[in-house]
Amino acid sequence: MTNKKEINASVIIIGNEVLSGRTKDLNTSTVSMWLNSIGIIVREVRVIPDIEKIIVDTVIELSSKFNYVFTTGGIGPTHDDITAESISKAFNLEYGFHKEAFSILEKYYEPGQFNEGRQKMAKMPINAKLILNPSSGAPGFYVKNVFCLPGVPSILKSMLGGLNNVLVGGDPILSKTINLRTYESEIAKSLTNVQDNNKDVEIGSYPFFRQGKLGVSLVLRSVDQIKIDKCNSQILEFVKEKNIKLVEID
Amino acid sequence: MTNKKEINASVIIIGNEVLSGRTKDLNTSTVSMWLNSIGIIVREVRVIPDIEKIIVDTVIELSSKFNYVFTTGGIGPTHDDITAESISKAFNLEYGFHKEAFSILEKYYEPGQFNEGRQKMAKMPINAKLILNPSSGAPGFYVKNVFCLPGVPSILKSMLGGLNNVLVGGDPILSKTINLRTYESEIAKSLTNVQDNNKDVEIGSYPFFRQGKLGVSLVLRSVDQIKIDKCNSQILEFVKEKNIKLVEID
Repeated sequence: MTNKKEINASVIIIGNEVLSGRTKDLNTSTVSMWLNSIGIIVREVRVIPDIEKIIVDTVIELSSKFNYVFTTGGIGPTHDDITAESISKAFNLEYGFHKEAFSILEKYYEPGQFNEGRQKMAKMPINAKLILNPSSGAPGFYVKNVFCLPGVPSILKSMLGGLNNVLVGGDPILSKTINLRTYESEIAKSLTNVQDNNKDVEIGSYPFFRQGKLGVSLVLRSVDQIKIDKCNSQILEFVKEKNIKLVEID
Repeated sequence: MTNKKEINASVIIIGNEVLSGRTKDLNTSTVSMWLNSIGIIVREVRVIPDIEKIIVDTVIELSSKFNYVFTTGGIGPTHDDITAESISKAFNLEYGFHKEAFSILEKYYEPGQFNEGRQKMAKMPINAKLILNPSSGAPGFYVKNVFCLPGVPSILKSMLGGLNNVLVGGDPILSKTINLRTYESEIAKSLTNVQDNNKDVEIGSYPFFRQGKLGVSLVLRSVDQIKIDKCNSQILEFVKEKNIKLVEID
């Protein structure tokens, strides 16, 4: 992909529950699709355990390698929620009660209900900027180029909109999907030719199986609609020659 | 987790379609749960693009860091399937037609149907060992401690059984889940005490929302059933004191 103004990101999924296989990661998909829409491309995802040293090292490494880093998970009230403290250590920032976060949470809970566990959710780098949480009160936060979001998918999703004006994206990444009733091996050679002729378009080929029938989805991605269209025409040409059926899938 | 005989692994998901958010990764969960059952713990997952240099570097790094590495994706017939060639380069192994793989595929297809695209699936490090594929013919393979599996979840799943006798695991990782009708913040302090008293058990706390009701799943993991049971009793103690309801979820 030769996006000249590429703005990129990585996602760090913090959570033993994903590593153990108990929980399937849905957050990467949500974050990536949202980032694509504002012109930021996700280049790497890591899933790591709730271990401070690993969180610290991973955040330091990836924050210097990519324009943005997004972490998910580990900002709740329990002992295994150590993201905020780890981020503070990674950047050598003072960790403690964040005034604005404390005040938001204090107002969110009924009088007398703002207990020690809940107060922990106001602890973070004290000068962090907040990511407001329209679903359940407890905010996320960001420092430098690292944005810390919760692990619960519905809550995470509800918080992304608040960041649209904070992030600076590049050209939006456009895509076009062509679904064919064929096998990958039938089109592999023609597709290689098209890819060779269209270096600026990333062409992905993905077999699918729906309603008892096999097929292949071709996904064309680029920041340039004209290049996608050109690539699309060349694909449709060999599709026609080979008498392959185009299909609609959900 | 202080598993004294820890045997660990990492998973590398190779595929632009996961990074772009188009496809949700289901393979990590499948591979992790199967590995847990044979006493191997997954310590890191990386999702990386279909770019040779990144695949080569990631495989070299993780294969020296963990006992086993599993890759998923990129072993099909199309131009974006570059895992086998990248693995050959990572370990400086000759890449070409694998005799046994070629023969399996030749027999799998009808006469005249074993075309160039399909033949590509027989190309890999020529001395690799094969991972047989009961679903769709094309085998995976392994060299050194790196095991290469396909990206299609159902096919990947069908191939794992063939590896049970190849991998050497440690003590199986046991787990116990306790589901409570409560909020994390209500139990955070008590849970920290239990974790402090049971350092050899990894306790995870995960909020859930089912049928309109909130709750918390506590997951206890260890290689030692006695330690899990002890930890479980201590949790049930504070659960009783706080008058919290135990619930069943799927």
